Amino acid sequence: MSLLVVGSIALDSVYTPFGETADAPGGSAVFFSAAGAMLHPVQIVGVVGTDYPLGALKALEARGVDLSGVEQAPGESFRWKAKYSYDLASRETLETRLGVFADFRPKLPPKFRDARYLFLGNIDPELQLGVLDQVKQPALVACDTMNYWIHSKRDLLLELLRHIDILMVNDSEARELSGDWNIYRAARWVLERGPKMTVIKQGEHGALLVNHGTVFKVPAYPLQEV
Amino acid sequence: MSLLVVGSIALDSVYTPFGETADAPGGSAVFFSAAGAMLHPVQIVGVVGTDYPLGALKALEARGVDLSGVEQAPGESFRWKAKYSYDLASRETLETRLGVFADFRPKLPPKFRDARYLFLGNIDPELQLGVLDQVKQPALVACDTMNYWIHSKRDLLLELLRHIDILMVNDSEARELSGDWNIYRAARWVLERGPKMTVIKQGEHGALLVNHGTVFKVPAYPLQEV
Repeated sequence: MSLLVVGSIALDSVYTPFGETADAPGGSAVFFSAAGAMLHPVQIVGVVGTDYPLGALKALEARGVDLSGVEQAPGESFRWKAKYSYDLASRETLETRLGVFADFRPKLPPKFRDARYLFLGNIDPELQLGVLDQVKQPALVACDTMNYWIHSKRDLLLELLRHIDILMVNDSEARELSGDWNIYRAARWVLERGPKMTVIKQGEHGALLVNHGTVFKVPAYPLQEV
Repeated sequence: MSLLVVGSIALDSVYTPFGETADAPGGSAVFFSAAGAMLHPVQIVGVVGTDYPLGALKALEARGVDLSGVEQAPGESFRWKAKYSYDLASRETLETRLGVFADFRPKLPPKFRDARYLFLGNIDPELQLGVLDQVKQPALVACDTMNYWIHSKRDLLLELLRHIDILMVNDSEARELSGDWNIYRAARWVLERGPKMTVIKQGEHGALLVNHGTVFKVPAYPLQEV
């Protein structure tokens, strides 16, 4: 079995009422790898610029993440700036600078093409489709996206939905995508477009899985220290 | 037994990605009365301007709400404008116009002073304290507030906390009040300042009750039609 993630490797500047980061390692592929490697070795594909602190990725390698699909290209790394308010769940994107991502065309190392389990992290749906084409026979494909792509590349995103098994988005993304404020109807709207399951990420409230027959809610464990 | 609410009777203009209202009847006392009257007769105290559509309040009367504590004063009604984004949980206040609320000093009709159960809806904590003084011997006092007062009248709000049994706020209000991002620690911060319980309102995710010994989470029922 192999678990492959393709997504963003970013430098995030995040402001909250309780603290802020400047150019902190982030991005969908990094967060997925850090979490996924708790359970299984992960293969990661992505691109960084010449300014990326590669030491942060070496820490992933020590956890069992195969970095051989990470390219370094001349230019700036992908940067995302956002501001969270006191609810810590909704964010306002202040800036998205694609940098080396603008010209990135993921090319999977041959040994990654046999991946059985594929997670398409939040990147341009055109790139997500390109990756899907390169994986020979995936048993299960999950996909994330966000408001930036829902807004700017809606048609390609809808095309992608026809080819994946699980869409994982948060509540506002599900609403923006479907145009429906009711989260259960929004999840079912997604199911009508291809996926077998919609997973709604609800942060500290847990997650909600909706498939054709079931609604399954998992609350988050009430931790006082993280 | 009697159930008394003192709070705002407002005209709300709310914008969401799915629709908007202009000068719609709202305010903490109105919403509390509509919900509370499902279970028990409610006495309401508040003020409206000469521009308020009184017919909306008559609908409450038909549900068992005693309106004899509602004053009509010369001037504009209290107005609140806010914008919600796709997550429908966090809002940005665009405008708060106090109108007749600026000079409102709630004076309880004598028959309301025996109230056993008191809900201090979201208004100036100075007014909330003034109401509390007029109720002879309440068995249970619950209180709401919001960012506007947390920010502008923090000291009075902390004074009020010493005299109430239950604080009901949403997650961002609990965080802003306590200065702690962790919602469980934020709820306990409140308990140290007087109340026996903190209830965190979580909208479609339900509600969380925290007291000195317990954490109790109630999810919301997964309705597809409201």
